[in-house]
This record gives sequence, structure tokens and C-alpha cells, in this order.
Amino acid sequence: MKNLYSDTIVAPATIPGTGAISIIRVSGPEAFRAADAVVSLKSGSISKKDGYTIHYGSVYASDKTLLDTVLVSVFRAPHSYTGEDSVEISTHASAYIVSELIRLLTEAGCRMAEPGEFTKRAFLNGKMDLAQAEAVADVISSTTQASHRVAMNQLRGGFSKELEGLRTQLLEMASLLELELDFSEEDVEFADRKKLICLVEGTLSHVEKLAASFHQGNMLKSGIPVAIVGAVNAGKSSLLNALLGDERAIVSSVEGTTRDTIEEILQIEGLSFRFIDTAGIRESEDTVEKIGIERTYSKISAAEVILGVLDSSKKSADFQADLRLIMDKISGSSASVFLLLNKADKLSNCDINNFVTMTNNIVTSFDIKANILALSAKTGLGLEKLKSALFASEKALLTAESGTLVTNLRHYEALTSSASSLRRTAEALRTGIPTDLVAEDLRAAIASVNLILGKDLGLSPEQVLHNIFAHHCIGK
Amino acid sequence: MKNLYSDTIVAPATIPGTGAISIIRVSGPEAFRAADAVVSLKSGSISKKDGYTIHYGSVYASDKTLLDTVLVSVFRAPHSYTGEDSVEISTHASAYIVSELIRLLTEAGCRMAEPGEFTKRAFLNGKMDLAQAEAVADVISSTTQASHRVAMNQLRGGFSKELEGLRTQLLEMASLLELELDFSEEDVEFADRKKLICLVEGTLSHVEKLAASFHQGNMLKSGIPVAIVGAVNAGKSSLLNALLGDERAIVSSVEGTTRDTIEEILQIEGLSFRFIDTAGIRESEDTVEKIGIERTYSKISAAEVILGVLDSSKKSADFQADLRLIMDKISGSSASVFLLLNKADKLSNCDINNFVTMTNNIVTSFDIKANILALSAKTGLGLEKLKSALFASEKALLTAESGTLVTNLRHYEALTSSASSLRRTAEALRTGIPTDLVAEDLRAAIASVNLILGKDLGLSPEQVLHNIFAHHCIGK
Repeated sequence: MKNLYSDTIVAPATIPGTGAISIIRVSGPEAFRAADAVVSLKSGSISKKDGYTIHYGSVYASDKTLLDTVLVSVFRAPHSYTGEDSVEISTHASAYIVSELIRLLTEAGCRMAEPGEFTKRAFLNGKMDLAQAEAVADVISSTTQASHRVAMNQLRGGFSKELEGLRTQLLEMASLLELELDFSEEDVEFADRKKLICLVEGTLSHVEKLAASFHQGNMLKSGIPVAIVGAVNAGKSSLLNALLGDERAIVSSVEGTTRDTIEEILQIEGLSFRFIDTAGIRESEDTVEKIGIERTYSKISAAEVILGVLDSSKKSADFQADLRLIMDKISGSSASVFLLLNKADKLSNCDINNFVTMTNNIVTSFDIKANILALSAKTGLGLEKLKSALFASEKALLTAESGTLVTNLRHYEALTSSASSLRRTAEALRTGIPTDLVAEDLRAAIASVNLILGKDLGLSPEQVLHNIFAHHCIGK
Repeated sequence: MKNLYSDTIVAPATIPGTGAISIIRVSGPEAFRAADAVVSLKSGSISKKDGYTIHYGSVYASDKTLLDTVLVSVFRAPHSYTGEDSVEISTHASAYIVSELIRLLTEAGCRMAEPGEFTKRAFLNGKMDLAQAEAVADVISSTTQASHRVAMNQLRGGFSKELEGLRTQLLEMASLLELELDFSEEDVEFADRKKLICLVEGTLSHVEKLAASFHQGNMLKSGIPVAIVGAVNAGKSSLLNALLGDERAIVSSVEGTTRDTIEEILQIEGLSFRFIDTAGIRESEDTVEKIGIERTYSKISAAEVILGVLDSSKKSADFQADLRLIMDKISGSSASVFLLLNKADKLSNCDINNFVTMTNNIVTSFDIKANILALSAKTGLGLEKLKSALFASEKALLTAESGTLVTNLRHYEALTSSASSLRRTAEALRTGIPTDLVAEDLRAAIASVNLILGKDLGLSPEQVLHNIFAHHCIGK
């Protein structure tokens, strides 16, 4: 195959110092020559080895001392990740060895790869499309079965296949319109407008369905947003800490979008929940505090789940005031609501029942549906129950119609843009706007889909014409 | 080859989530069968593939969905790291994929490997001796050329070869003594005692030289200990921070042996310096503070280099008092001493010269040799000069006689113990103590060397006798 690149790139594929083995990847037309310059095999040279074979060799530093003994895996174009000649050199996982080996390889003519450049080459060499290439990063960062499955489907081309189908439909329609344009002098109207409108609307509804799946896809990928709200000192942070508990070690902190909020991911039975600790809700005259509280409200409106934390050790009048404040702020939200009577370890069962009943009455008066749970962040009472309830409330995400899910914001935006182009196309067709203007809207809809696949990024009418002749055989 | 182990182990050889590729290693008699149970190759089964070949395959989760596409590298016993049948499975570097794949492999009969178990198997299968096996961890953690070279020499068997030589000499001597014992009824004295004493003393001096190299080897491996001492607020911590400066990112924190000291590693031109920030030196009646200061003194006595930090913005009487306190505490130390006139950015050149002269006079009166440098931790003035001076003072470590260096405390202790056994042996031979007691000391000396190599850990006189017959052919 033709080499798209004349330079050969090198980079570590693993982080040294944290395992037993480090892998250094080399890819490009000079991969074998560079590897031969650096690694002395026991017999023969890497350039002459078959693909998919492994060879034991030694690497010597500039001063002729042994740097390491290594294993070299050989991959011949196009049967490699990038589609180019490639080698993977396996060394001891020492930061010193890896940096020295990379230095030797750059001296032998390789260039340090840019981030993602191996995958970029795989895309440009036709080993995968853009959506698949983007899925590589998602597959690596997936931490739950659900997010893994969505990313793996995209990597294996499930998403691309669906988009290819859409694209073919759109190209067919465009072909019909372009054909009409081409013969416009002759005043021919090839395409049956009614049928065309019907086709455009069918495709539009498909695109809209895909775009709508971003809500679900993004929650599987980035976690279901759970806002923890309540009065100051109700125990919001303690609750978050208690929920994370022993699992803190496997929990990753997400940088909050504002300094006022802390976000933490907790996995419950294969679903990621992204907990957002918010500023305490209260009436405030302080300007800075007001800003924090405003942000709390915006977090509430974006949340899929709201945990309202209440201090049940308070006097019932104060408790009710806090509860009303929360209910005020969350009314109108479509989120699932959990009202948590915290510090319940300090109460008798009878008291707990009273608080639950009181809460229930107020909630009902606000016409909001909520789960009410008594718990204690301090003793752990009721926490497992809360986790189970959270999972139960969201588990439909896992079992939802197993169609393709959009998880990438770029794809979502392209689909949204494609949908609005299609809406304009349908409208234009209905109102009898000239064919060339209709065709322009349709081309914009195709360009948006192409953007996702990384296809025909320089799309021109000629390419659409080419499609006509390939499919319609007009001059036959 | 015979399998020493009946179980097959699995472990990740790289940390997932931090690179492009993760490697999962499987080793043991069932490695191929387990891999075949988990990975579906495009064609054929792993069990039938040649060693040193790579195969593309797919891994399916328990629910039949695709977990990942992988590359499987096949290694057939004894041509593998462990000496056993082994496979390395290369996946996308996703924590989810790695944990699922390991779960599938354990379901297929593999057991999670214990730390270092692959290398332990390599040792027990005779792929390397104990000293080599221990070097694997040193090679991985080496961060400088010097420490890498020492570790790599040990891994490649340089150290073991030298010890094997020693061991052979010791076994020869023991053979002679055992022979004498065996024929003791006949009152034969085979060994020429004088020659034997000479041999023992020669070997002893070799062992002592190796043990002595631990000082140098350990500094190359763990860093040259540099104690930063001085009065409270002289700027010790600021100096440490300024030295680490931009390099903090590549600097690793070492857990201090006491809470009172902070240790940081800085690499200067291929040498590691381990900086130890100490409690301020001053006279104190406070018990807790006294303990901290005592610890400072013990750090001073263990240091190879002492940086005495002085505040040159102080009045000269106070400055001199601080300096005398430092000199008092470090007199008697064999460390290289640097006296740093900190906060020199606040002084004129003339003032600096005055402080340098004053310092020099006091230092001379204490009969201590010291480098005196004016600098500023705040502005960075003089820091590069200090680094160069530090390197110059210690660079002999790099160019020292390139003999074998001991870097492992266990080896040092075994060599020290072997040396004292040999000293007892020589003494016993000189004073005419009965042969059987002499032989016991010699056997202890051999056992210590065996400990390092992991050889004949159950050494018995029979094994030494075997050696006699193998080498001396008595019954011929």
C-alpha cells in the first residue's frame, strides 16, 4: 500500500515504572530500518522477519553497554494497527530504559508521535473511520460494563454502519435532486416531490432518534448526574463521603465545573453515578454566596436524580422549613427525587415514622413524587438501601432498547445540525423552493454525517454527481 | 521440562488506563488451554501455534458480547520468561477490559499471581538465580544511567558470576577439610594448613571488598544522602524547593523515616541526590523538639554531603553564632560540607565577600574543609553553581573502579556474615582448632553466599562430599 506518511513515529504505549513490561511502538515506512538500527537480534534482521512474529534481541546504549534485552513484535503493512509497517518493542518497565530506547529510536530517524497519532494514521490509512477512531479513547476510559459496551459497539463499527445507512439514503436523495439540476434546462422534474418529502422525513426521524439517544449514551459514558442538595450542615458532604466509603480507592474525582461543586463517581452494579455536592440552600444576602446558590440551582436543573438531604435531629418546625425550601427549588424538575432523613441514628423508630409521615405530607402537597429514606451518614444506616434504590431508579438505562447510542458530544452536535438541515430540506420541498436551494440544505445534512465518519470532508457537488453515475448508470 | 507448578497464574503486566495497550500475562502448564478457552482466534487454536508467534483473536464476555479484540503472543516452555508455557494477551488499555479478561481467565482455571511470582517461577525453573531475580525490580526502578547499569549488570549475571567464583573457591577449601574429616581415623592431614589459611584470607579479602562496595552501590541505587541543616528560618525548606524547582514533576518523594524529615530525590547529571530536610538546629529545652533535633544529628552522621544553610541577612554576630552551632554538630563527620550563605540577594557584593571571609575563618578554626557558596533560594541566584558543585563533589561515584557493586541490603548482610565466618575460619586454622569445627565455620561462609544466589539452600555435608568426588576422583 502507498504510504501516506514519509515519517516514522515512535511512542510508549504503556506508562513505564508501573508494571512489569513496557511497550514502545514504532510505525511508518522506516519502522523496520529504525528498529534494526537499535535492536540487535540473535539472528537476522527485523526487516527480513515475517509479520506476526516475535524476536529476542539486545539494545545497546551509545557507550556500547547493554541497555536491555527486549522482545520485538513485527507487523507488516497493511496488517497492523496503523496499516503501516510497525514494531512493538517490549522492555523491562523502567522509565530510564524507555526514555533511552526512545532517544535511540529518534536518533535512528523516528519522530516522537503526537497524542493519538497512531490512531489518526489508522484512520487516514482506512483501517477505521473517524467515529471508530474516536471510540478507541472511549473504550480505554470505560469503567462499567454499560459504557464499555457502547464504546465497543462504536469501535467495532456498529454506529458507523448505521450512519453509513443514513448517508446512503441522503446521497440517493441528493442524487435525484442533482440530476434534476443537471437537466434543468430541459425543465425535467425527475424526483417525485411527494415521495422525496416522505423520504426526507423518514430520514429526519432516524437522525432525531440518534441525536436523542445522546442523553442516555452520555449518562452511560460520563455517569448519571445526581445533585445532593439541602440546607447547610444537613450532612451533604458526610453523605457523599459515606457513599464513597471504602470505594474511594477506585473512585475518580471529576474536576467540578465550578469551584463550588465537588463531583465524584460511584459505580453501583455497572452504572456510574456522578454525585454533585452543592452549596447549601438558604436565603442569603451575601453576593458571593448567592452565586454559589445560583449554581446549585443550575445543577439541580441538569440532574437526573436529586438527593434532598434533611437533618432529622432538628426541631420539626425547622425540619419542615428546610424541606419546603428544597421542594420549592426542585419543583418543576423532571429528576427522580430522594428525600433522605439524615442523622436518623439519633432517633427512635417512632420518631423516624413521624418524620417520614410529616415529609410525605409536605411532598404530596407539592405534587412531587419522591422516595423517602431514613439513614445516617455517620453510622452507615440505610446507605445500602439508598444505593439499591438509586440503581433501581436508573436501571432502565441498562435495559433500554439496545439500539445505537450516541455518546460523543461532537457526534450529537453533528446529528443535531444534520436534523435541522433536513427539517429545512423538507420545508423547502413542501413550499416548492427552487431545486438548487433544496439541494444545498440536503448537502449540508450529508456534510454533517460525513463529519462524524470523517468521510469526504471536502464534499463537493462533483462527488454527489459521481454517485449519480455510479448508481444510476445514466449514459448506459 | 518438568513442571514445578501444577497451577497456572495470571496477572496484568501493565497498569491499565494509563496507556494505549495493556498486557495480561498467563504462565503455567494450562496457559494455552486457558487462553484457548477465553480467546477465539481467527484460525486454529493457541495450543497448536508455534512459540514466538502473534495471533489476532476476539474475547467474548459471559453474555456473548464482544469484550475486545486482542493480540496473543505465544511462548513455549522452556523458551519463555518463566520457563513455562506462557501467553501474553495484548488488549486496549481499559481497566474494565483487563479486569473482565482476568476474571474470564480465572474462570478458565488460572489463579491470580502473587507479587513477583512470574520472576519467582523463572528462578525456580532455573532461568535465573536469586540475585538476578532480585535485580529485575532494581532494573525497573532505576532512574539514572548509573543505577541502571549496576542493576543491569546484576540482572545479566555479572554479580552472580563473581559470587559463583567465590563459591567455587569456598567449596574447594571445604572439600579439602571434609576429606580430612572423612579419613580422620587414619590421622591424615590432607590440607596444607598454611596454604589453606592463605586461601581463606584471600577469599575473605574478596568478600570484604564486595561488602564494602555496598556503600557506593547503595548510593547509586537509592541516592546520595544530603542533609540540609541550619538554624530555624535559615531557609532550608525554601532551598529544597528551589533546588527541586521545575523538576518537581519528575522528582519522587521518598517517605521519610521520621515525620520530622522530608526526603526528596533530585537527579543531577545521572547521579541521584537524596535531600533530607532536617529540624532546625538550636538549643532547646522542649522535650519533643529535642527529639527532632536528635534525629537531625543522626541524619547528619549518615549523610554523605551536608548542606549548612545560613541566613546572611542576619547581623554578623547572630550569623556567626548559627555557623558555630552548625560546625559544632558536624565536626567529626566525614561528609562533604557545603556552607550556603542564603538570602545573598539582599547583600551587596562587598557584604557577600565579608560574609564569605568571616565564614572561611570560622571553618578553618574548626579544621573542617568546606565549600562556601553565596546564593538565594528566593531568586535562584547561585543554585546552578551549587548543583554543579554537588555533582563535582560526588562524580567519582560514577567513574569509580567498575568492579561489581553490591546494591542490595540482603546481599550486603549475607556478605558481611560470610566475611565473619571466614574470619573465624582463618582464626580457627591458625590456632589449630579441630577440623570439624573449622569445617563448620567454612560451611557457614558458603551458606551465606548460597543465600544470595538461592543455591543449595538446604546445604548439607553430603553435598560438599559430592563435590569432593566430582572434583578429586578419589576412588578412581
